[in-house]
Amino acid sequence: MRLLGMQPKGFRCCAKNVGIKDTSLDFTVITSDVPAAAAAMFTRNSFCGPAITVGREHVRDGRLQAFVINSKNANVATGEQGLANVREVVRLVAEELSITPEDILPSSTGVIGRQLPMERLRQGIAGIQQQLRYGHLEQAAQAIMTTDTYPKMHCCRVGNATLVGIAKGVGMIEPDMATMLAYFMTDASLTPEQLHTILKDAVDDSFNMVSVDTDTSTSDTVAIMANGLAGEVNLADFQQALRDMCVRLARELARDGEGATKLIEVTVKNALDGQQAKRVAKSIVNSPLVKAAIFGADPNWGRIAMAIGKCYEQDTIVPEKTDIAFGYIPVYHRGLAMDEGHLSALKNYLRRDEISINVSLGLGDQQARVWGCDLSYDYVKINGTYTS
Amino acid sequence: MRLLGMQPKGFRCCAKNVGIKDTSLDFTVITSDVPAAAAAMFTRNSFCGPAITVGREHVRDGRLQAFVINSKNANVATGEQGLANVREVVRLVAEELSITPEDILPSSTGVIGRQLPMERLRQGIAGIQQQLRYGHLEQAAQAIMTTDTYPKMHCCRVGNATLVGIAKGVGMIEPDMATMLAYFMTDASLTPEQLHTILKDAVDDSFNMVSVDTDTSTSDTVAIMANGLAGEVNLADFQQALRDMCVRLARELARDGEGATKLIEVTVKNALDGQQAKRVAKSIVNSPLVKAAIFGADPNWGRIAMAIGKCYEQDTIVPEKTDIAFGYIPVYHRGLAMDEGHLSALKNYLRRDEISINVSLGLGDQQARVWGCDLSYDYVKINGTYTS
Repeated sequence: MRLLGMQPKGFRCCAKNVGIKDTSLDFTVITSDVPAAAAAMFTRNSFCGPAITVGREHVRDGRLQAFVINSKNANVATGEQGLANVREVVRLVAEELSITPEDILPSSTGVIGRQLPMERLRQGIAGIQQQLRYGHLEQAAQAIMTTDTYPKMHCCRVGNATLVGIAKGVGMIEPDMATMLAYFMTDASLTPEQLHTILKDAVDDSFNMVSVDTDTSTSDTVAIMANGLAGEVNLADFQQALRDMCVRLARELARDGEGATKLIEVTVKNALDGQQAKRVAKSIVNSPLVKAAIFGADPNWGRIAMAIGKCYEQDTIVPEKTDIAFGYIPVYHRGLAMDEGHLSALKNYLRRDEISINVSLGLGDQQARVWGCDLSYDYVKINGTYTS
Repeated sequence: MRLLGMQPKGFRCCAKNVGIKDTSLDFTVITSDVPAAAAAMFTRNSFCGPAITVGREHVRDGRLQAFVINSKNANVATGEQGLANVREVVRLVAEELSITPEDILPSSTGVIGRQLPMERLRQGIAGIQQQLRYGHLEQAAQAIMTTDTYPKMHCCRVGNATLVGIAKGVGMIEPDMATMLAYFMTDASLTPEQLHTILKDAVDDSFNMVSVDTDTSTSDTVAIMANGLAGEVNLADFQQALRDMCVRLARELARDGEGATKLIEVTVKNALDGQQAKRVAKSIVNSPLVKAAIFGADPNWGRIAMAIGKCYEQDTIVPEKTDIAFGYIPVYHRGLAMDEGHLSALKNYLRRDEISINVSLGLGDQQARVWGCDLSYDYVKINGTYTS
């Protein structure tokens, strides 16, 4: 995971433990040597945290110079005090880095409803300027984890520039317009407007297509800084690279979903429009019955039909035009269930750790692809004891 | 559970095993000695079974004389053959009972995507006329079970008449406009129009407010027959009795949800309108994170805030106007988390087997109440091995 030669110019990072909950990494600062063009997308949850409020304010002018992120405490449902606390964290970090507070985007992730332990944060922030190192972003990827089982990071070259992305998120995941936490750093030169457009496109086809448990977090943030130190790049190439990286990270988030043993990819084709394709695909990937059956490798494909059929509010589904397959194994074809002979093939297929469900609605020519994971005993265990 | 004196006049019943899957009760006929006024509501799932198609046809004239129900096979996604099979079952039963096929409402519940074992059904139906007995409805309640852990039945008197209701349903439950399977038999005299109106009202506030797992079944049916043998009743009294019975059965379905260890009742008050109250309440009761936390008795109340906040699509939620309480224990009051001192009270409260979550949105004066259950290891177990 070390970046080695692959690191964007002019980004330093520090990841440390300040003692928010235990002794694991819980606080990270990623900063650019020069102010960077920036764009960000946030959760639409009405109970969003004050870090979201401050982040929205600060990215509005398209310029950022640092991300400041704590894990283990979401600082949500904490009222005026919670807002004052995040402003103080931002101010203290800005003083340390000698940058303006308005160029910092803060994030908090973890338990909801508790105030940040400010005294520990103040002590942890003091002297952080001396702890910043070039590269080391894999430590940042580690520090933003909550119940993630491994840090998620990818990097690639685009012309002379480098793009690095880190992300976290395993539960309370059905992002909408944004996602969990994901940060991208590049030394390419791009305008804030360009960044905003390509970030939104990439997020729509990646993080917004992931659902671990239908629950939309109060802290979701995706942000990118482009500091320009590597000069101009081909915009289309950069857009493709960012999009590919978002999809890769999104798949990793699904695969590492809380308690997950399998990645589920659902592709719905031949829909009337993209929204219909997405609704049906999400209905399948979010069905607890489908998820539990896949966990148990139970060839109960009828539940896919149920999940398609329950999209009756907005969608006309025609069973006689619908096809359902697992990978290349057809299980339902336009009104008729598969031959029982396919059942043993399906049972074998379900032992894999990546399950593809392919649906054709036979209504139009649009499609969508979403990712999720199975529902296991460990999901219940992790979430039955999260704060206890 | 025996009805003893409490049975509506003129209803006979037979519940038996015809060998659809194993040796448990899997087939039941409930019939009135005379044609009865009737009403029914059905699943809106687009992949609904052919029994739903036939049931819709037969109840259209407001008259029925028998319910015919099999468990262990839903006869869904079975194409033309599935439809022909259910028509044959109805015709054979009608011949046995010497009634018209159009006065029979059929239902099937169980696994999706398999044809009914018709030879066994034909043998089981032969001679059923001699097996009908007055009363014995508790056996019908038993025969319609799938993964239910106990039969659900209630009865009450309204004037000179008696009302009996039976229901089943533990998984694939988020009914809409109808529910799982529930049947009501009464000897009161009511018109089909009266029955339809009061059934719809009762279902809206009871079965339509239950969600075990957000999955809407392909077989949901609620139906009532009123054969008039006890004469007229006060309509308001009957309406209240039916509504109370529907709520009682709905709560039982939630409490007996697959793998459930606790009943969850969510009441959302002071909403702008009833739809908003219902959306927010359903969002809470359906959140896997909330359900798993309640299973583990983890006082992670922040997840309630998350579940309220994620209703941003259609609803304006104002955290500063929102209150959240478990029973009488306040945990969040208009922007501020509770005192940590309440935490031990909350921990104690969560050990109960009925959990009430009370939310005030502070926006209007409408409310809704919904029921669900916790998410346990056993839900995963039951649904990971349903057909294996």
